[in-house]
Amino acid sequence: MEIIKKIELMQELSDKWRRDGHIISCVPTMGFLHQGHVELLRVGRDKGDRLIMTIFVNPTQFGPHEDYERYPRDTEGDLDKARSAGVDAVFMPTVEEMYPDGFQSAVTVNTITQYLCGKSRPGHFAGVTIVVAKLFNITKPHLAIFGEKDYQQLAVIRQMVRDLNMDIDIIGVPTVREQDGLAMSSRNKYLSPEERLSALSLKKGLDLAKAMIKDGEKDSATIKTAVRELILAHPFTEIDYVTICDPEKLTDIEHLDGPSLLALAVKVGKARLIDNIIL
Amino acid sequence: MEIIKKIELMQELSDKWRRDGHIISCVPTMGFLHQGHVELLRVGRDKGDRLIMTIFVNPTQFGPHEDYERYPRDTEGDLDKARSAGVDAVFMPTVEEMYPDGFQSAVTVNTITQYLCGKSRPGHFAGVTIVVAKLFNITKPHLAIFGEKDYQQLAVIRQMVRDLNMDIDIIGVPTVREQDGLAMSSRNKYLSPEERLSALSLKKGLDLAKAMIKDGEKDSATIKTAVRELILAHPFTEIDYVTICDPEKLTDIEHLDGPSLLALAVKVGKARLIDNIIL
Repeated sequence: MEIIKKIELMQELSDKWRRDGHIISCVPTMGFLHQGHVELLRVGRDKGDRLIMTIFVNPTQFGPHEDYERYPRDTEGDLDKARSAGVDAVFMPTVEEMYPDGFQSAVTVNTITQYLCGKSRPGHFAGVTIVVAKLFNITKPHLAIFGEKDYQQLAVIRQMVRDLNMDIDIIGVPTVREQDGLAMSSRNKYLSPEERLSALSLKKGLDLAKAMIKDGEKDSATIKTAVRELILAHPFTEIDYVTICDPEKLTDIEHLDGPSLLALAVKVGKARLIDNIIL
Repeated sequence: MEIIKKIELMQELSDKWRRDGHIISCVPTMGFLHQGHVELLRVGRDKGDRLIMTIFVNPTQFGPHEDYERYPRDTEGDLDKARSAGVDAVFMPTVEEMYPDGFQSAVTVNTITQYLCGKSRPGHFAGVTIVVAKLFNITKPHLAIFGEKDYQQLAVIRQMVRDLNMDIDIIGVPTVREQDGLAMSSRNKYLSPEERLSALSLKKGLDLAKAMIKDGEKDSATIKTAVRELILAHPFTEIDYVTICDPEKLTDIEHLDGPSLLALAVKVGKARLIDNIIL
């Protein structure tokens, strides 16, 4: 497995692989890998014959009061997991390599970033789109793999790729969960044992909504109220949003007729957790 | 010569050329080719072994009161010139192909676009960067050729390519001029015979500045005043800017010590003309 820190060297390797006719998969990560990432790598390995993983805790997608500094890091553990997953190259640049002095460009998706996490995390998705655009130009993949847990991120990246005509297949992979249902996330590390129990309320909320719909409920507001109440019945929880919306446009839905997305963002202790389900 | 209107077909052809080991040059144009474009094509032909020219009058880089509707077009003439210049493929999409319903992304360069033409044409460079980013992802060139007449555009594209890690060599080509010195531009077509004479004042202004500096003048303000007076002594002229600035950062320079850029934008009748020189 190659470990590459310089942009130019990564581009040279990808160029060579492309010239040799290989299909390159890329899995962008912020490191601190869990089973969810391993599943992304498995899909990447499966769909391509050269697998690149990137590790970069991207400062531009964190707000000034968010957890950039304390975001968990474990490079050695990540490299071990990457090796086991059959990664061919890990690209792990420094912040200076990615954002040198004089850097002044932006890539933005301007409509679907206004909802859900875009509301409570201004600038977050602009940070995601600039870094993913850069990582795509550096790793030159044929396909890139993202988790569906970060549903809006996946939607934003798909929109960017479509609008900018990036010739890359974006693959979404279903959320991997702990045995008790908690969606895997590097931020679960922030949870104390008591908070960990309350964090289960997200998945319970999704299940409750599913059950209500099965029983014939079609009113968004009724479902959202029930989910909010369930979550707030758990200690340490603070709701950022409970939203039912169009799965593509991310605009609110009042009456459930076609497919819709239930998306949650809940602060549990210091951890801001998200989860979602297509209803 | 292939004429391609669909994004996917252009990407497929470029992919094939790349797999076959060819070096692809791209010359993006808005059509209505003149000798300046032909020179760009010559350089592209010279530096690569597959030459793509794009023709697209990009609506997003025109302001609401600018000349998008009446911008001169001559597709048949352009295709003839492209054939003579040895172009391998012309990419000429429709506006709908480039900006389909739901399009919502932006690529911007945020500092050096605040000066010169960026001041008087708000949104212009955002239109340039989004369309050039798209055209690069569609034509997948190894190198792209732009004229130095549009100095700021060239600087903005270089900055975008650097910041987004696009693996493309950007080549600037010196301005091609009419025998009497007027910089070639599709917009020269707007000039009446009398205005055409006044349009020479731009090149005369550049020459005057050069002569003053040769004579030892180092004060920006003195030179700019002399150039303004020369231009305004010609009828039909209205100055947008006469600026002496840093050739990279485009920030104003007061005292000429190192290299500097003299850039002019002057309305002559209905035509907004630009010209520049490195002092």
